[in-house]
Amino acid sequence: MSQLLRVQNFSISSDGIGAGEDQTLERPFGLDHQERLHEWATATASFPGRPGSGGSRGLDDYFTRDFSHNIGAEIMGRNKFGPQRGPWQDHEWQGWWGEEPPFHTPVFVMTHHERPSFTLSDTTFHFVDADPATVLTRAREAAQGKDVRLGGGVRTIRQFLDADLVDTLHVAVTPVEFGSGLRLWNSPDDLLDRFHLEVVPSPSGVTHHLFWRR
Amino acid sequence: MSQLLRVQNFSISSDGIGAGEDQTLERPFGLDHQERLHEWATATASFPGRPGSGGSRGLDDYFTRDFSHNIGAEIMGRNKFGPQRGPWQDHEWQGWWGEEPPFHTPVFVMTHHERPSFTLSDTTFHFVDADPATVLTRAREAAQGKDVRLGGGVRTIRQFLDADLVDTLHVAVTPVEFGSGLRLWNSPDDLLDRFHLEVVPSPSGVTHHLFWRR
Repeated sequence: MSQLLRVQNFSISSDGIGAGEDQTLERPFGLDHQERLHEWATATASFPGRPGSGGSRGLDDYFTRDFSHNIGAEIMGRNKFGPQRGPWQDHEWQGWWGEEPPFHTPVFVMTHHERPSFTLSDTTFHFVDADPATVLTRAREAAQGKDVRLGGGVRTIRQFLDADLVDTLHVAVTPVEFGSGLRLWNSPDDLLDRFHLEVVPSPSGVTHHLFWRR
Repeated sequence: MSQLLRVQNFSISSDGIGAGEDQTLERPFGLDHQERLHEWATATASFPGRPGSGGSRGLDDYFTRDFSHNIGAEIMGRNKFGPQRGPWQDHEWQGWWGEEPPFHTPVFVMTHHERPSFTLSDTTFHFVDADPATVLTRAREAAQGKDVRLGGGVRTIRQFLDADLVDTLHVAVTPVEFGSGLRLWNSPDDLLDRFHLEVVPSPSGVTHHLFWRR
């Protein structure tokens, strides 16, 4: 079976925005009320690190628990990794996720400013200055036969879409509007020349968009 | 995390029927056109043993690929295992699935007529003459921390529902009518006193019913 490149559980607003222009340490997504993008996932029983019991086991839970299923590596843009820009001042910053990052696989961070790899728990971060196809080749090797997840953000996903490297894409469109920010698309129809699309409304109010390559 | 007892991808007709009364070697489900119950699953890319490539990666594929995710054991009724009734004449029959059964875990077959365990590839079948709670305890031990799947058929699922042992239940209601046979329910509303329910129509024409314990 081939190794897919999968975008999983990528949340955007109803106006297509996945992040703001101004990311800060306090606002990883650079948006006011950014938590509303992910409420559909954090409300499910399978959300990683969910405190206590409870949580829904309906449709949204299938997406939450599929997040890491058969995934052997992740690729992310530098802005998903952290708010710094330009050359690293030091290597103190190790991502937003604390001592137990939710990836549990090798992670390839795309950046023009490389730094040494490091490991937190069962996640190892590598820093790669290369084009999408080259990074994907490295991630596939590291994934040892499993699929590779493309973690975002918006610019990184668009870069891989432009290079026609994405096999499946799950986007959760949430019932919130941001007005301005980084847009994944003007309309999901933008992708229909290359992808099948199923649109699945969830009782939670989000609309799951499932794309797979034609 | 607790070990759930999960019914996964159990397909019934729009009139609630999951199997016919007269199972034979040629008709494992005892129904004419029984393949129509499972067309939604066999059309997906992740269906086990699917020949060649292709297949949809939309909503139905999430259910197909979740079938074995975090499952450590299966419980099934004797009629799911084979068409024989009463004492075993011999032990030649080893299930419908050939040399590579799709379970890949210990399987506990409920029967009043025990026989020795045997292994095919990475699936081991055990035969247990015990009540549902006792069988579930054995299956949980064998699952080593993972969940247990309740595989069916209809009578076995009803038995575990009556004993209030089922944690989650996914039933795919397919657009076919059989008129007579073994009914899982008169209406999904029968279960609402004990379960939450989400009803999710799929573009394929089946309606996924997702129940989880209140």
